[in-house]
Amino acid sequence: MTEDLRIEKVGQCIFSSPLDSAVFITDSEGVLIDATLSGCERCQGEPASLEMAGPREKIFFKPETSRAALVTCGGLCPGLNDVIRAVVMVLWYRYGVKEILGLRYGYEGLIASFNHEPLVLNPELVEDIHRDGGTILGTSRGPQDPTLMADFLSERKIDMLFTIGGDGTQRGALAITREIEKRGLAISVIGIPKTIDNDISFTERTFGFETAVAMSQIPITGAHMEAKGVRNGIGIVKLMGRESGFIAAYATLASSDVNLVLIPEIHFSLEKVFAYLEERIVRKRHAVIVVAEGAGQEHVPAEGTDASGNKKLGDIGLFLKAAITEYFSRRKIPAAVRYIDPSYTIRSAPATPEDSVFCFQLAENAVHAAMSGRTGMVVGIWNGHFVHIPIRLSVKDRKKIDTSGLLWQSVLDNTGQPRNLA
Amino acid sequence: MTEDLRIEKVGQCIFSSPLDSAVFITDSEGVLIDATLSGCERCQGEPASLEMAGPREKIFFKPETSRAALVTCGGLCPGLNDVIRAVVMVLWYRYGVKEILGLRYGYEGLIASFNHEPLVLNPELVEDIHRDGGTILGTSRGPQDPTLMADFLSERKIDMLFTIGGDGTQRGALAITREIEKRGLAISVIGIPKTIDNDISFTERTFGFETAVAMSQIPITGAHMEAKGVRNGIGIVKLMGRESGFIAAYATLASSDVNLVLIPEIHFSLEKVFAYLEERIVRKRHAVIVVAEGAGQEHVPAEGTDASGNKKLGDIGLFLKAAITEYFSRRKIPAAVRYIDPSYTIRSAPATPEDSVFCFQLAENAVHAAMSGRTGMVVGIWNGHFVHIPIRLSVKDRKKIDTSGLLWQSVLDNTGQPRNLA
Amino acid sequence: MTEDLRIEKVGQCIFSSPLDSAVFITDSEGVLIDATLSGCERCQGEPASLEMAGPREKIFFKPETSRAALVTCGGLCPGLNDVIRAVVMVLWYRYGVKEILGLRYGYEGLIASFNHEPLVLNPELVEDIHRDGGTILGTSRGPQDPTLMADFLSERKIDMLFTIGGDGTQRGALAITREIEKRGLAISVIGIPKTIDNDISFTERTFGFETAVAMSQIPITGAHMEAKGVRNGIGIVKLMGRESGFIAAYATLASSDVNLVLIPEIHFSLEKVFAYLEERIVRKRHAVIVVAEGAGQEHVPAEGTDASGNKKLGDIGLFLKAAITEYFSRRKIPAAVRYIDPSYTIRSAPATPEDSVFCFQLAENAVHAAMSGRTGMVVGIWNGHFVHIPIRLSVKDRKKIDTSGLLWQSVLDNTGQPRNLA
Amino acid sequence: MTEDLRIEKVGQCIFSSPLDSAVFITDSEGVLIDATLSGCERCQGEPASLEMAGPREKIFFKPETSRAALVTCGGLCPGLNDVIRAVVMVLWYRYGVKEILGLRYGYEGLIASFNHEPLVLNPELVEDIHRDGGTILGTSRGPQDPTLMADFLSERKIDMLFTIGGDGTQRGALAITREIEKRGLAISVIGIPKTIDNDISFTERTFGFETAVAMSQIPITGAHMEAKGVRNGIGIVKLMGRESGFIAAYATLASSDVNLVLIPEIHFSLEKVFAYLEERIVRKRHAVIVVAEGAGQEHVPAEGTDASGNKKLGDIGLFLKAAITEYFSRRKIPAAVRYIDPSYTIRSAPATPEDSVFCFQLAENAVHAAMSGRTGMVVGIWNGHFVHIPIRLSVKDRKKIDTSGLLWQSVLDNTGQPRNLA
Repeated sequence: MTEDLRIEKVGQCIFSSPLDSAVFITDSEGVLIDATLSGCERCQGEPASLEMAGPREKIFFKPETSRAALVTCGGLCPGLNDVIRAVVMVLWYRYGVKEILGLRYGYEGLIASFNHEPLVLNPELVEDIHRDGGTILGTSRGPQDPTLMADFLSERKIDMLFTIGGDGTQRGALAITREIEKRGLAISVIGIPKTIDNDISFTERTFGFETAVAMSQIPITGAHMEAKGVRNGIGIVKLMGRESGFIAAYATLASSDVNLVLIPEIHFSLEKVFAYLEERIVRKRHAVIVVAEGAGQEHVPAEGTDASGNKKLGDIGLFLKAAITEYFSRRKIPAAVRYIDPSYTIRSAPATPEDSVFCFQLAENAVHAAMSGRTGMVVGIWNGHFVHIPIRLSVKDRKKIDTSGLLWQSVLDNTGQPRNLA
Repeated sequence: MTEDLRIEKVGQCIFSSPLDSAVFITDSEGVLIDATLSGCERCQGEPASLEMAGPREKIFFKPETSRAALVTCGGLCPGLNDVIRAVVMVLWYRYGVKEILGLRYGYEGLIASFNHEPLVLNPELVEDIHRDGGTILGTSRGPQDPTLMADFLSERKIDMLFTIGGDGTQRGALAITREIEKRGLAISVIGIPKTIDNDISFTERTFGFETAVAMSQIPITGAHMEAKGVRNGIGIVKLMGRESGFIAAYATLASSDVNLVLIPEIHFSLEKVFAYLEERIVRKRHAVIVVAEGAGQEHVPAEGTDASGNKKLGDIGLFLKAAITEYFSRRKIPAAVRYIDPSYTIRSAPATPEDSVFCFQLAENAVHAAMSGRTGMVVGIWNGHFVHIPIRLSVKDRKKIDTSGLLWQSVLDNTGQPRNLA
Repeated sequence: MTEDLRIEKVGQCIFSSPLDSAVFITDSEGVLIDATLSGCERCQGEPASLEMAGPREKIFFKPETSRAALVTCGGLCPGLNDVIRAVVMVLWYRYGVKEILGLRYGYEGLIASFNHEPLVLNPELVEDIHRDGGTILGTSRGPQDPTLMADFLSERKIDMLFTIGGDGTQRGALAITREIEKRGLAISVIGIPKTIDNDISFTERTFGFETAVAMSQIPITGAHMEAKGVRNGIGIVKLMGRESGFIAAYATLASSDVNLVLIPEIHFSLEKVFAYLEERIVRKRHAVIVVAEGAGQEHVPAEGTDASGNKKLGDIGLFLKAAITEYFSRRKIPAAVRYIDPSYTIRSAPATPEDSVFCFQLAENAVHAAMSGRTGMVVGIWNGHFVHIPIRLSVKDRKKIDTSGLLWQSVLDNTGQPRNLA
Repeated sequence: MTEDLRIEKVGQCIFSSPLDSAVFITDSEGVLIDATLSGCERCQGEPASLEMAGPREKIFFKPETSRAALVTCGGLCPGLNDVIRAVVMVLWYRYGVKEILGLRYGYEGLIASFNHEPLVLNPELVEDIHRDGGTILGTSRGPQDPTLMADFLSERKIDMLFTIGGDGTQRGALAITREIEKRGLAISVIGIPKTIDNDISFTERTFGFETAVAMSQIPITGAHMEAKGVRNGIGIVKLMGRESGFIAAYATLASSDVNLVLIPEIHFSLEKVFAYLEERIVRKRHAVIVVAEGAGQEHVPAEGTDASGNKKLGDIGLFLKAAITEYFSRRKIPAAVRYIDPSYTIRSAPATPEDSVFCFQLAENAVHAAMSGRTGMVVGIWNGHFVHIPIRLSVKDRKKIDTSGLLWQSVLDNTGQPRNLA
């Protein structure tokens, strides 16, 4: 295994796992990064692989004397409560860890001066929380001082910290890991990547993504009906996707009502977009546009950064609404533009059943990883297996749509839009 | 019956109804406007009543030689396709009218110069349209010249016109009725009132309203989760309701997650609203606000009128979002305000099952009214019975929430907000 | 007011209502039973009316020293938790009653020997229960000894009992009322009628009914797809409706996919049904049948009575499935019959938004009635107003579909089935 | 590549693909069957792989002169119409194939004597069919004579046949392939595996499965509410799964309300099941059971075979209902058992959004395979890539749950049931 893919551990596993598991995963098992035949041939017998997730026969923490904590950071995402619930259930029932703290309001909850008293979590309290969207722990944006957070963990005698959040959150988790290491403490920090945009490297899918695709169907159908309901109607739906257009692409494939998708991965000129739209409107009298929030940022003024340090995106949805209205008015073609921004409704929804299952499995594997003393890593799924990914690797690049690949080709076929809009 | 409540007819009914109906309604039957005991006592034996709707034994139009037309006007509303479908089905199968035209894009479809060729409607074409929101006929805003519209009806030999739209549309229908009368033509004009706001006088319920209440639950729950997901989160949902707050009120009662409802019928000062919000935020750390689009217009600049002649409302939702953010910032209380405007998604939805039933029944009664030669009227439901309402009466006043009545009291109890916010 | 319609009270109202209500209803206000003009003429100035529900200015029970109890009986029905929640909320917040007991498992909960300790109810406990179907109190079938139940009420110092259940339950409530009266106790017994079938006299609508109609759409659509998916497919859906076919009728109108509806109110011969089906199958190659559980009982053997004393119905759904299969096989016409019985899934569902609003309003009015010392009555809605109905009247007859009326005519038009199948 | 995994072709590809694709897949590309590190080590540089699906640069059929046909066989499954729609869209718009026949009622549609005239398919006709469950083509069970089916294909000049169905259907497709081969015809036969049970070898997921898991949540929640609504309530839900318990397992993980899952892969004694149930009922007063239809067949009498030659399963759901009722009655513990069989409602539902996307992608790859002259194969997804699987391999074994693996362990943890019930 290359250095880059190695998973760190806080110490030697000496306790026997209490799991009545019929199967334990050995530490040497891995999942090939490239499962194609050509990839296999190129690797010459030393294929790159990710450590396989799952329960270990020997564990590092003694369950009855260990204390775990969870924190949720950043924006809402479907499935947060599913993950919280499953982490608690698996710690409690499978391993026998009975001290579990829910830290409040993101990383603020690890800063003593905020005085956010943690929730004491147990199965009864979390039993039904997965029926609701949101997070029972609350969340906040932005980093906090890793030394203060390490102080908190050490004062509260926390042995395992589960950080549920996006790449900013996982960078914070890595900073905590380093600080803990410096102090010679044995605290596991395990991340569960939360990105509704599905743009984390080395994980095929992130929780909440599928729900987001499902929930986007209602506004897209609405936009379609609005567009068809008037002469030359144009419905625009803005969906999540800061740097990757996965939600926009899958929502389009699921709907089959969309005529133009704009994503961050492609550049487009307004002239080309307008020309395509005009041709379509003249021919069909209506059109539906899906635009990812991060698309076409060269056309809109930037707006600084938010508390998490993310660049604040210009509002491409409102921009398109105004620009398209203006274009058709200039061309003296009557047109009615309707704009829908369903983001809050989508991200605050409870998880779909399949997403719930995925949350359960992610959380299980995060707990196995923590119990075995792993740290500085996130859990993911790759080539159909749950895996461990070093944080430094998972935050290095974002996963993006390959616009010369098959997924984007499917989208082009589905919408009928030209490949080249630049 | 007082003059005001009398229903006009285009002529004497001489044909026998082809209906195999076990029951026909006699023309003298009515529904009391006031069904309370005290109302009955006050009326001294001459109670005001609305003509009861339903099939008549004698009809005016000979089905096999009659031609009907439908038009949908104004904004989308759940149930439009249900109404279109049911009018076609009842004309075709019950009465045997086989010439039915669907006029395109609102009243534009009655102006020859627009060249919108009507759709020829039949059962096969409309069979499944009720599964979709929107309107297969398309719609447009704004009035058209009644003389040109009467020309169209007479040139196309249309005997019955069904006008599906709001009060502007029904005023237009009345103008057409007058023009037809002047020309001595025997064309029935029957309105089916479409107001998602449920604000038509003398009808307890309008189609689409119930669906709107149901569909508003998703964004309200989303706002609730967003508000609870952060410290001092405030979720704002703007719902339909230009002059009446029925959707906001019922959506609040259905949800039980709302802490403040603002409707057009109440005046409120920003100071009182802010003070209540601050108190709630300090106590509970989150709040959910539902605001009807027509509420608090004294606080926002007006924006002219739309093509239908409706006053364009200032955007109270965006205004509140900014004003509340500014208030808490001034008060140095960290707060996160999330604003959701789900209007297009709500109004473009297909009807709920109960709403579908209601659409079917409204349409049936509209057809009965037309076949019996009635004109210048709309159908509605009052005290549990379907009734005929003269257009001039139905557009006179809007139905509003009585803020000293029981419904508003229920809302106050449900939210806990103060009665007096002025 | 005729004797029959008079509402009993346990005593004189001497306390001032704590409600900050802008409106109180006077005891003399009523709602006309017949709101038609002809009914009004017939009554000669002395119209029969039901007492109007709503808050009274003077109340009988002193809130701070009163104790209330709720019980849910019989089968599940959507909205039970909504009603429980709203009764608790209104008692607690509007009147200040802070002692509220939830009796467990139906009338068993009023029999000391069962040892079902009541739940102590408060706003926090009931806050979110309306999101779930079922009843948090549990339920059971069958009557219990009224003297033992009166003992329980008096020993537990209960002042108000809310009985949520069907007509058997309300008969039980009347027996308790009589026993209490005999003992000279001042305990209010207020019923909230629970019949998913919507078959209670003098109330236009019962809670859960609308949800049942909505939930029945999924299996009906499924049956439609199953029927169309094979050659000569016949889908049968059995819906609730022991003696009245309201759910079957409204579900049919909402769906518009049904070709034959069989309800308890009509008699049908199997020959006529088979002949109609064969004609349809030959012509269209598929058919959908909705049958109310109480329909065609003359064709199936009876099966005794259940614990509530209700006649156990023969299973007309399974019977039809077998009989139709056998008929087509005899006629040598290949046919595939698919049978769906969705009853448990429907009745255990949470209430739709409109049904939730209705539950809230029913519960509010039940509390007003109890606080004002009324007893031996149920709340209902009539001609658009909430009303008080003496139990003895509400259980006298069941509301049924008038098969020579307009509703049934609409159903016949919708399905195309012959009026006479006998 | 081993012989077993080789994909057959009807001839040499000589035409250039009309696809404006930025990427073509080369014929030598494959997807490793085992993507784990240990698997890779064992294979010693010659890993077994499946041919990768996707568009080829050279194709066999000339689009403008080719004719395609589709057939759907066996029971309904969510997504059938999505697959039909996508095959038509991709053939028509991407390749320019304009002659597409929809064969009616399964393999009957390929037998001339049935006289089922094919539907002529085009984009307009299929545009909205994916909103409905079922199949617009109709289906039937059972095999037909391959020589007669080959006659039909050859007489109708069909070049490509898409067979959408389960393993019986694909065996039929293989028989057709052999017959065509014998006659020296160049007709591609491409299967799209349809098994709601998700039990096809070498494909991680089959269409309809995810929808089935999602749709099963409503009856499971209903069973839960029914069980909790009475004292000692036991809710039983029977789900699909003839030989594999994937739906039951995933539905359980998604719900987290289930206390016992019984699947075909495990043996259980009734004594052990009863003992566990009694213990749970005494402790918790309610229980929810999910049983796959193929579970516990040793306890129920077999019932012959159906038209497809599948063994007709004994009804384990009804059996358990009776047996459990009897057991508790014998133990003199009052208990109420409610049984729900939602199968038809689940399998006739329209696909969820994610399932729709999957159907689109499967269909695309099936079309690519056919156009390149492949035959005797089905499309699937393996280790995250779409692949070609020889029919003989895909029908050899069924995919089953490994009861000593991680998925089953998750289920045991989720329900709390004992691992060993035998």
